[in-house]
Amino acid sequence: MKTIDVCLSPDLIHLFNVKNKVIVVVDILRATSCMTTGMAYGIKSIKPFSSLEECQQMKSKGYYIAGERNGEKVDDFDLGNSPFDYMNPNLKGKNVAVTTTNGTVAIEKSQEADEIVIGSFLNISAVAQYLCEQEKDVLIFCAGWKGKVNMEDSLFAGALVERLQNDFANECDAPLIVQAAYQEMSHNLLALVQSSSHAKRLQKLNIYEDIEYCLKLDEYDVVPVIRNGEIVLLKEPTIS
Amino acid sequence: MKTIDVCLSPDLIHLFNVKNKVIVVVDILRATSCMTTGMAYGIKSIKPFSSLEECQQMKSKGYYIAGERNGEKVDDFDLGNSPFDYMNPNLKGKNVAVTTTNGTVAIEKSQEADEIVIGSFLNISAVAQYLCEQEKDVLIFCAGWKGKVNMEDSLFAGALVERLQNDFANECDAPLIVQAAYQEMSHNLLALVQSSSHAKRLQKLNIYEDIEYCLKLDEYDVVPVIRNGEIVLLKEPTIS
Repeated sequence: MKTIDVCLSPDLIHLFNVKNKVIVVVDILRATSCMTTGMAYGIKSIKPFSSLEECQQMKSKGYYIAGERNGEKVDDFDLGNSPFDYMNPNLKGKNVAVTTTNGTVAIEKSQEADEIVIGSFLNISAVAQYLCEQEKDVLIFCAGWKGKVNMEDSLFAGALVERLQNDFANECDAPLIVQAAYQEMSHNLLALVQSSSHAKRLQKLNIYEDIEYCLKLDEYDVVPVIRNGEIVLLKEPTIS
Repeated sequence: MKTIDVCLSPDLIHLFNVKNKVIVVVDILRATSCMTTGMAYGIKSIKPFSSLEECQQMKSKGYYIAGERNGEKVDDFDLGNSPFDYMNPNLKGKNVAVTTTNGTVAIEKSQEADEIVIGSFLNISAVAQYLCEQEKDVLIFCAGWKGKVNMEDSLFAGALVERLQNDFANECDAPLIVQAAYQEMSHNLLALVQSSSHAKRLQKLNIYEDIEYCLKLDEYDVVPVIRNGEIVLLKEPTIS
């Protein structure tokens, strides 16, 4: 039977064997929710950068540039880090370069995987279905917050483990822990994530609508994957 | 209000400020359960070593020596790593030197804390009461398994957070996650821990009784703490 495991923080990724696996990168607030939304709305590709300067330089190559640092939009960038920014019709068919605090780090640390998938609540069932169709073990990789475990990414991991439990065996204890936490908390997800430490940090930035949106299930039937360092769609979206 | 946080793995401890805090070290299967039991049964002190050789050398200084590597007793040592070994009446008033795979590492990484407390299900209420009486922030430090998050330590953390929630504010998201997991799993703790990866590793060593014992709540009203590198009791036990 295929196995599933959960890495709760980028600072734990050295403990996992990523080779021959499909890695699902998760940064619910808000990198992977933005990526899912943008790809569903017709962006051609999204190229992640951990360095702000490298991202900025992509402007001269015709890319739209998107970025945040510590939850705030970078000055002079085309897009901020709200998923609503990614619904702009002008972005359709365009290439975007993005830099984020935690999400990009997780993507960079996943490079040796067989496949990297962008996961969010917005496309959780599409991702789950894709994983079930592959003959590979899965690692859900939570971006966390500056190395610390966070609620929204952990609960997404729990929700995805729950959807995969008939097709995958747990490789270690983390999947069981996050699945239990999700089962306990799923009835009240919005209130709980808003009371979480990360959301509190973000609340001063008026992102109530972003949080509410990022917790919506299955808005989009898209599976963004990384090809040659860029996020592209596995197949065309059925929505947008 | 005092704060509480949970470090789910020794590989994450660098993210936490341990100074001025009380750290509760947890290694349910089986280091801190053994320490709690031994101290309740009248051992004078337990000195932890990460090096097997250093531990062995304490024999010549009159210490009983106890040790495990990868869940198995070390040859020629006086005690193994079963809590039942620590109930031996010959140990009363004696000093013990111990080396374990994960628990000792966690204790070593806690040295800068104001106070280090040994926590287990066996003394959870005594530990909770002690923490409530201190005017200090608390960090629950799970020993895990070779750096990975494990079920039994995480669930202990959740159970302790639950007991402290009226007196402490959560410093980050990890306390909320483990508390939710504990609430979901507490009705069925033994079966769940036995199905966990760590227990499966240990099952081949016939430790069913150990696991059952290590999950018992409040067998002992003792608070083992570390003084000058040795585990001693804060006060005399009321049992044994």
